[in-house]
Amino acid sequence: MSELTESVQRMMKEFEKLPGIGKKSAERITYYLLKAQTSEALALADSIRLVKERVRYCKRCFNLAEQELCDICRDPHRDTSVICVVEQPRDLISIEQTGVFRGVYHVLLGRVAPLDGITADQLTIDALVRRVRAGGVDEIIMATNPTVEGDGTALLISNQLTDLPVKITRLARGITTGSTLEFANKEMLSDALVGRQNFRGEVKKH
Amino acid sequence: MSELTESVQRMMKEFEKLPGIGKKSAERITYYLLKAQTSEALALADSIRLVKERVRYCKRCFNLAEQELCDICRDPHRDTSVICVVEQPRDLISIEQTGVFRGVYHVLLGRVAPLDGITADQLTIDALVRRVRAGGVDEIIMATNPTVEGDGTALLISNQLTDLPVKITRLARGITTGSTLEFANKEMLSDALVGRQNFRGEVKKH
Repeated sequence: MSELTESVQRMMKEFEKLPGIGKKSAERITYYLLKAQTSEALALADSIRLVKERVRYCKRCFNLAEQELCDICRDPHRDTSVICVVEQPRDLISIEQTGVFRGVYHVLLGRVAPLDGITADQLTIDALVRRVRAGGVDEIIMATNPTVEGDGTALLISNQLTDLPVKITRLARGITTGSTLEFANKEMLSDALVGRQNFRGEVKKH
Repeated sequence: MSELTESVQRMMKEFEKLPGIGKKSAERITYYLLKAQTSEALALADSIRLVKERVRYCKRCFNLAEQELCDICRDPHRDTSVICVVEQPRDLISIEQTGVFRGVYHVLLGRVAPLDGITADQLTIDALVRRVRAGGVDEIIMATNPTVEGDGTALLISNQLTDLPVKITRLARGITTGSTLEFANKEMLSDALVGRQNFRGEVKKH
Protein backbone atom coordinates (compact mmCIF):
# COMPACT_ATOMS: atom_id res chain seq x y z
CA MET A 1 0.00 0.00 0.00
CA SER A 2 2.48 2.59 -1.12
CA GLU A 3 -0.47 4.97 -1.47
CA LEU A 4 -0.72 5.39 2.27
CA THR A 5 1.61 7.93 3.81
CA GLU A 6 4.66 6.67 5.63
CA SER A 7 3.39 7.31 9.14
CA VAL A 8 0.03 5.68 8.36
CA GLN A 9 1.78 2.59 7.02
CA ARG A 10 3.92 2.41 10.12
CA MET A 11 0.90 2.66 12.43
CA MET A 12 -0.92 -0.04 10.49
CA LYS A 13 2.11 -2.35 10.78
CA GLU A 14 2.24 -1.76 14.53
CA PHE A 15 -1.40 -2.74 14.90
CA GLU A 16 -0.85 -5.85 12.78
CA LYS A 17 1.65 -7.08 15.37
CA LEU A 18 -1.08 -7.31 18.01
CA PRO A 19 -2.67 -10.71 18.66
CA GLY A 20 -5.89 -11.31 16.74
CA ILE A 21 -5.34 -8.28 14.51
CA GLY A 22 -4.87 -9.20 10.87
CA LYS A 23 -4.25 -7.02 7.85
CA LYS A 24 -7.93 -6.20 7.39
CA SER A 25 -8.53 -5.35 11.06
CA ALA A 26 -5.41 -3.19 11.13
CA GLU A 27 -6.68 -1.34 8.07
CA ARG A 28 -10.08 -0.80 9.64
CA ILE A 29 -8.54 0.51 12.86
CA THR A 30 -6.21 2.74 10.85
CA TYR A 31 -9.06 4.39 8.96
CA TYR A 32 -10.97 4.74 12.20
CA LEU A 33 -8.07 6.51 13.89
CA LEU A 34 -7.45 8.72 10.87
CA LYS A 35 -11.01 9.95 11.12
CA ALA A 36 -11.12 10.09 14.91
CA GLN A 37 -10.60 13.22 16.96
CA THR A 38 -6.94 13.78 17.73
CA SER A 39 -7.77 13.69 21.45
CA GLU A 40 -9.35 10.26 21.12
CA ALA A 41 -6.39 8.79 19.24
CA LEU A 42 -3.94 10.32 21.68
CA ALA A 43 -5.93 8.92 24.62
CA LEU A 44 -5.18 5.45 23.23
CA ALA A 45 -1.50 6.25 22.64
CA ASP A 46 -1.12 7.75 26.11
CA SER A 47 -2.89 4.83 27.81
CA ILE A 48 -0.32 2.44 26.33
CA ARG A 49 2.58 4.65 27.38
CA LEU A 50 1.17 4.99 30.90
CA VAL A 51 0.83 1.23 31.33
CA LYS A 52 4.43 0.66 30.34
CA GLU A 53 5.57 3.43 32.67
CA ARG A 54 3.50 2.49 35.68
CA VAL A 55 2.73 -1.19 35.69
CA ARG A 56 5.19 -3.61 37.21
CA TYR A 57 4.96 -6.93 38.98
CA CYS A 58 4.14 -7.14 42.66
CA LYS A 59 7.36 -7.72 44.57
CA ARG A 60 5.77 -10.49 46.59
CA CYS A 61 3.35 -12.37 44.33
CA PHE A 62 4.15 -11.07 40.79
CA ASN A 63 0.60 -9.94 40.15
CA LEU A 64 0.27 -6.69 38.20
CA ALA A 65 0.87 -3.69 40.44
CA GLU A 66 1.37 0.05 40.27
CA GLN A 67 3.09 0.12 43.64
CA GLU A 68 5.62 -2.15 45.24
CA LEU A 69 2.91 -4.60 46.32
CA CYS A 70 -0.30 -5.36 44.43
CA ASP A 71 -3.77 -4.50 45.73
CA ILE A 72 -4.30 -8.04 47.00
CA CYS A 73 -1.01 -8.27 48.88
CA ARG A 74 -1.72 -4.87 50.46
CA ASP A 75 -5.22 -5.92 51.55
CA PRO A 76 -5.09 -6.69 55.32
CA HIS A 77 -8.26 -8.79 55.04
CA ARG A 78 -6.70 -11.46 52.80
CA ASP A 79 -5.63 -14.72 54.39
CA THR A 80 -1.87 -14.97 53.77
CA SER A 81 -1.73 -18.57 55.00
CA VAL A 82 -3.25 -19.86 51.74
CA ILE A 83 -1.40 -19.20 48.49
CA CYS A 84 -3.07 -19.93 45.17
CA VAL A 85 -0.48 -20.53 42.45
CA VAL A 86 -1.48 -19.40 38.95
CA GLU A 87 0.33 -19.13 35.64
CA GLN A 88 -0.67 -15.62 34.63
CA PRO A 89 -2.25 -12.47 36.10
CA ARG A 90 -5.30 -13.19 33.94
CA ASP A 91 -5.83 -16.49 35.78
CA LEU A 92 -5.75 -14.60 39.05
CA ILE A 93 -8.47 -12.32 37.73
CA SER A 94 -10.63 -15.29 36.73
CA ILE A 95 -10.36 -16.71 40.24
CA GLU A 96 -10.98 -13.34 41.89
CA GLN A 97 -14.16 -13.01 39.87
CA THR A 98 -15.62 -16.10 41.51
CA GLY A 99 -15.46 -14.21 44.81
CA VAL A 100 -14.91 -17.42 46.81
CA PHE A 101 -11.16 -17.20 47.41
CA ARG A 102 -9.92 -15.03 50.29
CA GLY A 103 -6.28 -16.12 50.34
CA VAL A 104 -3.38 -14.62 48.41
CA TYR A 105 -1.70 -15.55 45.14
CA HIS A 106 1.58 -16.39 43.54
CA VAL A 107 1.85 -15.70 39.82
CA LEU A 108 4.39 -17.89 38.03
CA LEU A 109 4.45 -15.67 34.93
CA GLY A 110 4.31 -18.72 32.69
CA ARG A 111 4.53 -22.48 32.78
CA VAL A 112 7.39 -24.87 32.18
CA ALA A 113 7.24 -25.59 28.45
CA PRO A 114 10.35 -27.26 27.09
CA LEU A 115 9.04 -27.10 23.52
CA ASP A 116 8.79 -23.31 23.77
CA GLY A 117 12.14 -23.11 25.53
CA ILE A 118 10.58 -22.02 28.83
CA THR A 119 12.40 -23.58 31.76
CA ALA A 120 11.63 -23.52 35.49
CA ASP A 121 14.24 -20.86 36.25
CA GLN A 122 12.42 -18.38 34.00
CA LEU A 123 9.39 -18.58 36.28
CA THR A 124 8.94 -17.20 39.80
CA ILE A 125 9.19 -20.63 41.47
CA ASP A 126 12.22 -19.69 43.60
CA ALA A 127 10.34 -16.73 45.01
CA LEU A 128 7.42 -19.02 45.90
CA VAL A 129 9.70 -21.46 47.68
CA ARG A 130 11.19 -18.55 49.64
CA ARG A 131 7.71 -17.36 50.61
CA VAL A 132 6.80 -20.80 51.93
CA ARG A 133 10.14 -21.23 53.66
CA ALA A 134 9.65 -17.88 55.43
CA GLY A 135 6.74 -19.52 57.26
CA GLY A 136 3.09 -18.75 57.95
CA VAL A 137 1.85 -20.63 54.89
CA ASP A 138 -0.47 -23.58 55.54
CA GLU A 139 -1.70 -24.43 52.06
CA ILE A 140 -0.64 -24.06 48.45
CA ILE A 141 -3.46 -24.43 45.93
CA MET A 142 -2.13 -25.35 42.49
CA ALA A 143 -4.29 -23.51 39.97
CA THR A 144 -2.11 -23.94 36.91
CA ASN A 145 -3.97 -24.76 33.72
CA PRO A 146 -5.31 -28.33 33.39
CA THR A 147 -2.92 -29.02 30.51
CA VAL A 148 0.15 -31.24 30.19
CA GLU A 149 2.38 -28.22 30.74
CA GLY A 150 0.31 -26.77 33.57
CA ASP A 151 0.17 -30.12 35.36
CA GLY A 152 3.91 -30.60 34.81
CA THR A 153 4.66 -27.22 36.28
CA ALA A 154 2.50 -27.95 39.33
CA LEU A 155 4.26 -31.29 39.83
CA LEU A 156 7.68 -29.66 39.59
CA ILE A 157 6.70 -27.05 42.17
CA SER A 158 5.23 -29.61 44.57
CA ASN A 159 8.52 -31.54 44.34
CA GLN A 160 10.42 -28.43 45.36
CA LEU A 161 8.12 -27.94 48.35
CA THR A 162 8.20 -31.54 49.47
CA ASP A 163 10.39 -30.93 52.56
CA LEU A 164 8.33 -28.01 53.79
CA PRO A 165 5.38 -28.36 56.21
CA VAL A 166 2.72 -27.15 53.81
CA LYS A 167 -0.40 -28.82 52.42
CA ILE A 168 -0.50 -28.87 48.61
CA THR A 169 -3.88 -29.09 46.88
CA ARG A 170 -5.07 -28.52 43.36
CA LEU A 171 -8.31 -27.29 41.76
CA ALA A 172 -10.99 -29.98 41.53
CA ARG A 173 -11.53 -31.47 38.09
CA GLY A 174 -14.70 -32.92 36.74
CA ILE A 175 -17.74 -32.18 34.67
CA THR A 176 -18.66 -28.54 34.24
CA THR A 177 -21.86 -27.11 35.68
CA GLY A 178 -24.42 -26.65 32.92
CA SER A 179 -22.83 -29.15 30.52
CA THR A 180 -24.21 -32.53 29.49
CA LEU A 181 -22.47 -35.89 29.91
CA GLU A 182 -23.14 -36.60 26.25
CA PHE A 183 -20.53 -34.05 25.23
CA ALA A 184 -18.04 -34.64 28.03
CA ASN A 185 -14.75 -36.07 26.81
CA LYS A 186 -13.04 -39.10 28.32
CA GLU A 187 -10.54 -37.08 30.40
CA MET A 188 -13.31 -34.95 31.87
CA LEU A 189 -15.40 -37.97 32.83
CA SER A 190 -12.50 -39.92 34.27
CA ASP A 191 -11.45 -36.85 36.32
CA ALA A 192 -15.03 -36.57 37.51
CA LEU A 193 -15.16 -40.24 38.53
CA VAL A 194 -11.78 -40.33 40.24
CA GLY A 195 -12.44 -37.09 42.12
CA ARG A 196 -16.06 -37.88 42.97
CA GLN A 197 -17.45 -35.87 45.86
CA ASN A 198 -19.92 -36.52 48.67
CA PHE A 199 -23.46 -35.99 47.48
CA ARG A 200 -24.41 -33.76 50.43
CA GLY A 201 -22.17 -31.02 49.09
CA GLU A 202 -19.20 -31.72 51.29
CA VAL A 203 -16.09 -31.36 49.17
CA LYS A 204 -13.77 -34.36 49.23
CA LYS A 205 -10.56 -33.48 50.99
CA HIS A 206 -7.30 -34.19 49.19
CA MET B 1 -12.18 -6.26 36.57
CA SER B 2 -11.18 -4.33 39.62
CA GLU B 3 -8.20 -6.67 39.94
CA LEU B 4 -6.43 -4.94 37.07
CA THR B 5 -4.50 -1.82 37.95
CA GLU B 6 -6.04 1.50 37.03
CA SER B 7 -3.80 2.23 34.05
CA VAL B 8 -4.29 -1.28 32.65
CA GLN B 9 -8.06 -0.89 32.89
CA ARG B 10 -7.88 2.44 31.12
CA MET B 11 -5.77 1.01 28.28
CA MET B 12 -8.16 -1.90 27.87
CA LYS B 13 -11.11 0.50 27.63
CA GLU B 14 -9.30 2.54 24.97
CA PHE B 15 -8.74 -0.58 22.86
CA GLU B 16 -12.37 -1.59 23.25
CA LYS B 17 -13.38 1.64 21.49
CA LEU B 18 -11.67 0.53 18.27
CA PRO B 19 -13.81 -1.03 15.54
CA GLY B 20 -13.89 -4.83 15.60
CA ILE B 21 -12.29 -4.97 19.06
CA GLY B 22 -14.57 -6.46 21.68
CA LYS B 23 -13.98 -7.08 25.36
CA LYS B 24 -12.14 -10.35 24.76
CA SER B 25 -9.87 -8.96 22.05
CA ALA B 26 -9.07 -5.90 24.17
CA GLU B 27 -8.15 -8.23 27.02
CA ARG B 28 -5.91 -10.30 24.79
CA ILE B 29 -4.15 -7.21 23.43
CA THR B 30 -3.77 -5.85 26.96
CA TYR B 31 -2.03 -8.99 28.18
CA TYR B 32 0.12 -9.01 25.08
CA LEU B 33 1.25 -5.42 25.66
CA LEU B 34 1.84 -6.05 29.36
CA LYS B 35 4.24 -8.81 28.43
CA ALA B 36 5.77 -7.04 25.46
CA GLN B 37 9.04 -5.16 25.57
CA THR B 38 8.50 -1.53 26.57
CA SER B 39 10.07 -0.46 23.28
CA GLU B 40 7.54 -2.49 21.30
CA ALA B 41 4.54 -1.07 23.16
CA LEU B 42 5.88 2.46 22.86
CA ALA B 43 6.42 1.95 19.12
CA LEU B 44 2.68 1.41 18.82
CA ALA B 45 1.86 4.41 21.01
CA ASP B 46 4.28 6.64 19.10
CA SER B 47 3.01 5.51 15.70
CA ILE B 48 -0.51 6.64 16.65
CA ARG B 49 0.76 9.98 17.91
CA LEU B 50 2.84 10.51 14.77
CA VAL B 51 -0.10 9.87 12.47
CA LYS B 52 -2.23 12.41 14.27
CA GLU B 53 0.62 14.93 14.17
CA ARG B 54 1.65 14.45 10.57
CA VAL B 55 -1.22 13.23 8.46
CA ARG B 56 -3.56 15.74 6.88
CA TYR B 57 -5.61 15.90 3.73
CA CYS B 58 -4.03 16.88 0.42
CA LYS B 59 -4.89 20.52 -0.28
CA ARG B 60 -5.89 19.66 -3.83
CA CYS B 61 -7.53 16.24 -3.83
CA PHE B 62 -8.11 15.46 -0.11
CA ASN B 63 -6.19 12.21 -0.23
CA LEU B 64 -4.07 11.48 2.85
CA ALA B 65 -0.85 13.48 2.79
CA GLU B 66 2.09 14.36 4.98
CA GLN B 67 2.89 17.45 2.95
CA GLU B 68 0.69 20.09 1.41
CA LEU B 69 -0.01 17.86 -1.59
CA CYS B 70 -0.28 14.08 -1.59
CA ASP B 71 2.17 11.78 -3.38
CA ILE B 72 -0.14 11.42 -6.36
CA CYS B 73 -0.73 15.15 -6.83
CA ARG B 74 3.03 15.73 -6.59
CA ASP B 75 3.78 13.03 -9.19
CA PRO B 76 4.58 14.79 -12.50
CA HIS B 77 3.78 11.61 -14.44
CA ARG B 78 0.11 11.57 -13.52
CA ASP B 79 -2.40 12.81 -16.07
CA THR B 80 -4.15 15.75 -14.41
CA SER B 81 -6.77 15.96 -17.17
CA VAL B 82 -8.63 12.93 -15.77
CA ILE B 83 -10.00 13.11 -12.23
CA CYS B 84 -11.36 10.00 -10.55
CA VAL B 85 -13.87 10.89 -7.82
CA VAL B 86 -13.96 8.52 -4.83
CA GLU B 87 -15.67 8.60 -1.46
CA GLN B 88 -12.74 7.73 0.79
CA PRO B 89 -8.94 7.48 0.71
CA ARG B 90 -9.33 3.70 0.99
CA ASP B 91 -11.24 3.63 -2.32
CA LEU B 92 -8.36 5.51 -3.92
CA ILE B 93 -6.01 2.83 -2.65
CA SER B 94 -8.16 0.06 -4.14
CA ILE B 95 -8.08 1.77 -7.54
CA GLU B 96 -4.35 2.45 -7.33
CA GLN B 97 -3.76 -1.24 -6.66
CA THR B 98 -5.23 -2.16 -10.05
CA GLY B 99 -2.38 -0.21 -11.63
CA VAL B 100 -4.50 0.78 -14.65
CA PHE B 101 -5.35 4.37 -13.73
CA ARG B 102 -2.80 7.09 -14.44
CA GLY B 103 -4.97 10.14 -13.80
CA VAL B 104 -5.48 11.98 -10.50
CA TYR B 105 -8.15 11.76 -7.81
CA HIS B 106 -10.63 13.77 -5.85
CA VAL B 107 -11.63 12.34 -2.48
CA LEU B 108 -15.09 13.44 -1.32
CA LEU B 109 -14.46 12.33 2.29
CA GLY B 110 -17.88 10.74 2.45
CA ARG B 111 -21.12 10.46 0.53
CA VAL B 112 -24.39 12.33 0.75
CA ALA B 113 -26.42 10.35 3.27
CA PRO B 114 -29.49 12.22 4.55
CA LEU B 115 -30.34 9.43 7.00
CA ASP B 116 -26.91 9.82 8.64
CA GLY B 117 -27.19 13.61 8.52
CA ILE B 118 -24.41 13.95 5.93
CA THR B 119 -25.20 16.70 3.44
CA ALA B 120 -23.40 17.77 0.27
CA ASP B 121 -21.74 20.77 1.92
CA GLN B 122 -19.91 18.46 4.35
CA LEU B 123 -18.11 16.86 1.41
CA THR B 124 -15.38 18.33 -0.80
CA ILE B 125 -17.69 18.86 -3.79
CA ASP B 126 -17.10 22.63 -3.96
CA ALA B 127 -13.36 22.07 -4.20
CA LEU B 128 -13.95 19.61 -7.05
CA VAL B 129 -16.10 22.11 -8.94
CA ARG B 130 -13.36 24.72 -8.48
CA ARG B 131 -10.76 22.30 -9.85
CA VAL B 132 -12.84 21.65 -12.93
CA ARG B 133 -13.65 25.32 -13.38
CA ALA B 134 -9.94 26.19 -13.23
CA GLY B 135 -9.60 24.29 -16.52
CA GLY B 136 -7.41 21.54 -17.92
CA VAL B 137 -9.80 18.74 -16.87
CA ASP B 138 -11.23 16.63 -19.70
CA GLU B 139 -12.91 13.81 -17.82
CA ILE B 140 -14.41 13.10 -14.42
CA ILE B 141 -14.75 9.40 -13.58
CA MET B 142 -17.36 8.82 -10.90
CA ALA B 143 -16.05 6.01 -8.71
CA THR B 144 -18.40 6.41 -5.76
CA ASN B 145 -19.73 3.17 -4.32
CA PRO B 146 -22.43 1.37 -6.34
CA THR B 147 -25.00 2.00 -3.61
CA VAL B 148 -28.07 4.22 -3.43
CA GLU B 149 -26.07 6.83 -1.55
CA GLY B 150 -22.99 6.57 -3.75
CA ASP B 151 -25.07 6.83 -6.92
CA GLY B 152 -27.01 9.76 -5.46
CA THR B 153 -23.80 11.57 -4.61
CA ALA B 154 -22.46 11.02 -8.13
CA LEU B 155 -25.68 12.33 -9.64
CA LEU B 156 -25.59 15.42 -7.44
CA ILE B 157 -22.01 16.14 -8.47
CA SER B 158 -22.72 15.64 -12.16
CA ASN B 159 -25.58 18.12 -11.84
CA GLN B 160 -23.20 20.69 -10.41
CA LEU B 161 -20.78 20.15 -13.29
CA THR B 162 -23.42 20.25 -16.01
CA ASP B 163 -22.42 23.69 -17.38
CA LEU B 164 -18.74 22.88 -17.56
CA PRO B 165 -17.05 21.39 -20.65
CA VAL B 166 -16.05 18.10 -19.05
CA LYS B 167 -16.94 14.53 -19.90
CA ILE B 168 -18.47 12.64 -16.97
CA THR B 169 -18.16 8.85 -16.88
CA ARG B 170 -18.68 6.23 -14.21
CA LEU B 171 -17.16 2.84 -13.46
CA ALA B 172 -18.58 0.04 -15.61
CA ARG B 173 -21.05 -2.23 -13.86
CA GLY B 174 -21.75 -5.81 -14.70
CA ILE B 175 -20.93 -9.34 -13.75
CA THR B 176 -17.69 -9.86 -11.88
CA THR B 177 -14.79 -11.79 -13.38
CA GLY B 178 -14.64 -15.26 -11.87
CA SER B 179 -18.28 -15.32 -10.75
CA THR B 180 -21.10 -17.44 -12.19
CA LEU B 181 -24.37 -16.17 -13.66
CA GLU B 182 -26.25 -18.55 -11.40
CA PHE B 183 -25.40 -16.45 -8.38
CA ALA B 184 -25.62 -13.02 -10.00
CA ASN B 185 -28.47 -10.93 -8.64
CA LYS B 186 -31.00 -9.09 -10.82
CA GLU B 187 -29.31 -5.69 -10.53
CA MET B 188 -25.94 -7.12 -11.49
CA LEU B 189 -27.37 -8.88 -14.56
CA SER B 190 -29.43 -5.90 -15.69
CA ASP B 191 -26.36 -3.65 -15.32
CA ALA B 192 -24.39 -6.16 -17.37
CA LEU B 193 -27.02 -6.25 -20.11
CA VAL B 194 -27.54 -2.48 -20.32
CA GLY B 195 -23.82 -1.78 -20.32
CA ARG B 196 -22.89 -4.64 -22.68
CA GLN B 197 -19.52 -4.23 -24.37
CA ASN B 198 -18.05 -5.16 -27.76
CA PHE B 199 -16.86 -8.73 -27.76
CA ARG B 200 -13.47 -7.87 -29.25
CA GLY B 201 -12.49 -6.21 -26.00
CA GLU B 202 -13.22 -2.64 -27.05
CA VAL B 203 -14.93 -0.94 -24.12
CA LYS B 204 -18.24 0.73 -24.91
CA LYS B 205 -17.92 4.49 -24.63
CA HIS B 206 -20.39 6.25 -22.36
